[in-house]
Amino acid sequence: MHILILGAAGMLGCKLTERLLRDGRLGRHEISKITLQDVVSPRPTAAAIPLDVIAGDFVGADAAAALVASRPDVIFHLAAIVSGEAEADFEKGYRINLDGTRYLFEAIRAVGDGYRPRLVFTSSIAVFGAPFPAAIGDEFLNAPLTSYGTQKAICELLLVDYTRRGFLDGVGIRLPTICVRPGKPNKAASGFFSNIIREPLAGENAVLPVGDDIRHWHASPRSAIAFLTHAASFDAAQLGARRNLNMPGLSVTVGEQIAALANVAGPSVVARIRREPDASIATIVEGWPRNFKAERASKLGFAAAETSFEDIIRIHIEDELGGSFVH
Amino acid sequence: MHILILGAAGMLGCKLTERLLRDGRLGRHEISKITLQDVVSPRPTAAAIPLDVIAGDFVGADAAAALVASRPDVIFHLAAIVSGEAEADFEKGYRINLDGTRYLFEAIRAVGDGYRPRLVFTSSIAVFGAPFPAAIGDEFLNAPLTSYGTQKAICELLLVDYTRRGFLDGVGIRLPTICVRPGKPNKAASGFFSNIIREPLAGENAVLPVGDDIRHWHASPRSAIAFLTHAASFDAAQLGARRNLNMPGLSVTVGEQIAALANVAGPSVVARIRREPDASIATIVEGWPRNFKAERASKLGFAAAETSFEDIIRIHIEDELGGSFVH
Repeated sequence: MHILILGAAGMLGCKLTERLLRDGRLGRHEISKITLQDVVSPRPTAAAIPLDVIAGDFVGADAAAALVASRPDVIFHLAAIVSGEAEADFEKGYRINLDGTRYLFEAIRAVGDGYRPRLVFTSSIAVFGAPFPAAIGDEFLNAPLTSYGTQKAICELLLVDYTRRGFLDGVGIRLPTICVRPGKPNKAASGFFSNIIREPLAGENAVLPVGDDIRHWHASPRSAIAFLTHAASFDAAQLGARRNLNMPGLSVTVGEQIAALANVAGPSVVARIRREPDASIATIVEGWPRNFKAERASKLGFAAAETSFEDIIRIHIEDELGGSFVH
Repeated sequence: MHILILGAAGMLGCKLTERLLRDGRLGRHEISKITLQDVVSPRPTAAAIPLDVIAGDFVGADAAAALVASRPDVIFHLAAIVSGEAEADFEKGYRINLDGTRYLFEAIRAVGDGYRPRLVFTSSIAVFGAPFPAAIGDEFLNAPLTSYGTQKAICELLLVDYTRRGFLDGVGIRLPTICVRPGKPNKAASGFFSNIIREPLAGENAVLPVGDDIRHWHASPRSAIAFLTHAASFDAAQLGARRNLNMPGLSVTVGEQIAALANVAGPSVVARIRREPDASIATIVEGWPRNFKAERASKLGFAAAETSFEDIIRIHIEDELGGSFVH
């Protein structure tokens, strides 16, 4: 089985690559080759599986045709610019997040000859916009409040139509906010959800710009990788015509996040969180989904690695911090 | 007020033009000019209002820029290829129904300088796909089962994002199936809903390819024009971020349509309907919406011209047949 990963240098792309190299197989199939694409060169670890690395933009008819010319069996399409950038640069957002996906789908269609790869598309809960019910069900409308969410929702629709027409075998997964996101604090409006856990565990201070009552929908990086590999290997015919799924997650408040941090790491770690209310961030967060009933995905075998926010913190300590943190 | 109508030679475009010429105003504004565009030359009746006629494709950056260069205040975007053609010709459907709309929106954005026209987009109940609840509410997901429905759903998302960004003032209206559609029988799978009324009233036989229990969602052409003019003139700020609306309609079965025809026109007219079950049409119709609760639109003043299917038949006799039919 030949696997292509678009956006392989991103956080999820790196973790997915590591996982596939470690497993050597995806579902019931042995992996014969992995092709990694990103605008910056993805740095794979030494591997027993043949690796191709393509450093360059994937947006464009020629670039897309080159990526699928070798007919990969599974394509993970993780490539996108993030929400903040898509909002700041309208044209770039549509070019990368919408046109890039369409070039890819068209390149796959152009291969023809019965070529019909499993295509796993990482969508987002940003396809939803307030006002919300208490928990968003599997039949709630897409009403994005950002250009990023709009672009993801459009790609979901294309994924379904190209699948229905027999050009590809698409599965879209709407990921919760990934928490704890490893790396450095960034300027994403959602960054604080991870910052208030990651930084204190590393002995650093973190800023909390919203109130303790803010509720949000989370999944660990470990869960995200489990969702991706399951999406690539399960029997997608079970989806029928609706190929996009809300992934399982945890609905917790910021206060519950902090209480979990106290339970796992103690009050001295929690003391590194500094409250600095920021009305502009609070307004943005108001429009975000808080809670889901991800019934279809659960029935189809998509399972999170965690059952509590304490688990999410422990997964971060295990997977990112080598099992220990700064007391 | 300068009004631009794209797709002006179509059935709705012609009726809308006639109505605007007759009224001389839209909402509280006097109409100073109307520009009509279509691929075939729209044939306006003699009019007191200055009319521009543009016969040609609207798809493309230059064509779109030319259409909006004179900064029309209101744009009715009715241009599209129909469901059957978009399904038969995948590339043409995306080129006209998706790219055409995007060129238009981009041309409006490129005008800049505070230009922000009211743009009324005719969407369709084809954005919905089975399985359905008993009545589709205002928060039900878009899950189209055709390329046409996919293209309409994508344009709806673009309409919202371009509106949110301040580039236009968009309102999308999801029209019920228009019944009784004037003109000749065509090959559209939905054609029979109109054929079984229009043809018998004209003294012709009509074929009914589905069972009497098939339920569908209808509105008269007169209602559609009322929805369009209201969408162009009401205070759209009331919509908030959700700019696409399910229009009011009537949910009736084919059996109820025929009973209404008997009530209005008598058994000799009904006798011109010939039952010829067609399994392929029945399968297509299975995926179509049957019933809605169009609560938001009703609250916002969108009102149908009919309250029963008898009304729909009477409207056809009044508006298309000069008040009489073939007994």
